[in-house]
Amino acid sequence: MNNNSSSPIGIFDSGVGGLTVARAVMERLPRESVLYFGDTARVPYGVKSQDIISRYAVEIAKFLLEKRVKMLIIACNTMAAVAYDAVRALSGVPVLEVIDAGARTAVAHTRNHRIGIIATPSTTSSGAYLQAIQRYEHDGMFITTQACPLFVPLVEEGWTDHPVTRLTAFEYLTPLLAQNIDTLVLGCTHYPLLKPMLQSVMGPGVQLVDSAEAISLRAEALLREMDLENASGEPPRHVFHVTDVPHRFQEVGERFLGRPLDQVELVSL
Amino acid sequence: MNNNSSSPIGIFDSGVGGLTVARAVMERLPRESVLYFGDTARVPYGVKSQDIISRYAVEIAKFLLEKRVKMLIIACNTMAAVAYDAVRALSGVPVLEVIDAGARTAVAHTRNHRIGIIATPSTTSSGAYLQAIQRYEHDGMFITTQACPLFVPLVEEGWTDHPVTRLTAFEYLTPLLAQNIDTLVLGCTHYPLLKPMLQSVMGPGVQLVDSAEAISLRAEALLREMDLENASGEPPRHVFHVTDVPHRFQEVGERFLGRPLDQVELVSL
Repeated sequence: MNNNSSSPIGIFDSGVGGLTVARAVMERLPRESVLYFGDTARVPYGVKSQDIISRYAVEIAKFLLEKRVKMLIIACNTMAAVAYDAVRALSGVPVLEVIDAGARTAVAHTRNHRIGIIATPSTTSSGAYLQAIQRYEHDGMFITTQACPLFVPLVEEGWTDHPVTRLTAFEYLTPLLAQNIDTLVLGCTHYPLLKPMLQSVMGPGVQLVDSAEAISLRAEALLREMDLENASGEPPRHVFHVTDVPHRFQEVGERFLGRPLDQVELVSL
Repeated sequence: MNNNSSSPIGIFDSGVGGLTVARAVMERLPRESVLYFGDTARVPYGVKSQDIISRYAVEIAKFLLEKRVKMLIIACNTMAAVAYDAVRALSGVPVLEVIDAGARTAVAHTRNHRIGIIATPSTTSSGAYLQAIQRYEHDGMFITTQACPLFVPLVEEGWTDHPVTRLTAFEYLTPLLAQNIDTLVLGCTHYPLLKPMLQSVMGPGVQLVDSAEAISLRAEALLREMDLENASGEPPRHVFHVTDVPHRFQEVGERFLGRPLDQVELVSL
């Protein structure tokens, strides 16, 4: 059994983006240990076939389950859209994923039933957020999506508060501003780093839904409900597994995580 | 023997970028057939280990050699930096690569012996252009490099003449302007699409070296020297092999190639 309350929470992504999810979980649940897995050697997943994405997701989940995690968080929109059922079928530990968490929170927030979603092209074209929102509310909901392919490279370049990024944000978001939405889902794990800029472009009338925050709230509730909160009194231990150490990994990773990346372990699957 | 004058020229890249090289070759050598190979399922190569890049390059080269190409062109800076010797060892057909062609042309062009190189981070940190330039001229040459990671996503977004791209170009190129270079090597196969903008930012005193053009000149000279020009009188036939058909492949590919992408064949290695 993996269901030991002092076991870590397993969080995985195709690369560094999921570190924003790890950060939110570590901030909300400071007593919990986190085992992170970033498949940096095979990133990006967005261009791969569904079969391959599913196979990779299962490999990663098995790796984390062998390390006796008590919960799995799919912190990658591409894997969440394709491989959730395959991962859930692997094990008895609860499995959370970013798309469901973001969609659920957006439905709870919107007053005028008009929701915008920004994400990478592969996520917007998958229609996964649309389906997830319709799971929670299928009557009279207006949903508009916008692919923002440049946001990921801009964030990785570190230009989170740069005139180029502001100009790019205006270009992408102007069509959404015209749609009178009151809720905007940040449908990519890189986007929380752009939150202040996106909020200033959208204005105070639009509520931003950060999937990382949303999933950390879900994780907190679920641990409580299942009586799996860490009660050991031992300090948490965080370990970050990657399949390659790409260019500027440390610098970029620490920006995403918001703290030093100490325990990085290179593994191969 | 592959050395048949009516055989195609094999051109390969990790993705669509090498289509700018195919375009330059097709424009300079309108009677030659081109077999293109883009490893779109495994792009990008820049983050992979040298062993893997070399293995993939050899797989692709073997595929093209089996199709009886008369010349191989490595239209990918990452593969050129790592796998040139391995590819050349495979076969008796001549092998050209973009870094050598760009470096050779830059050395021939510069008057003040001050050369700038712009490329992706993996290419700049490999030092491959520096080494290649020093093969042709090692005395008193000043070389400065600048990584421009956002240019590839901006080109793929189609923003080749957009205020965001202009602002980004000023940000990256201002340090180079201060260095009094007279020659700037476009060290990435995506950059030829930015040529008008880069020229206007650098000003008329700086000569841009487009590796795609440089390599098409080398290919022309070599075919003549080896008496391998297509003398069959038959119209050329171009075929484009890809390992995956990613999002917007047709649209992006045609922008790179400058003509319709008709004969696209999906293959697996």
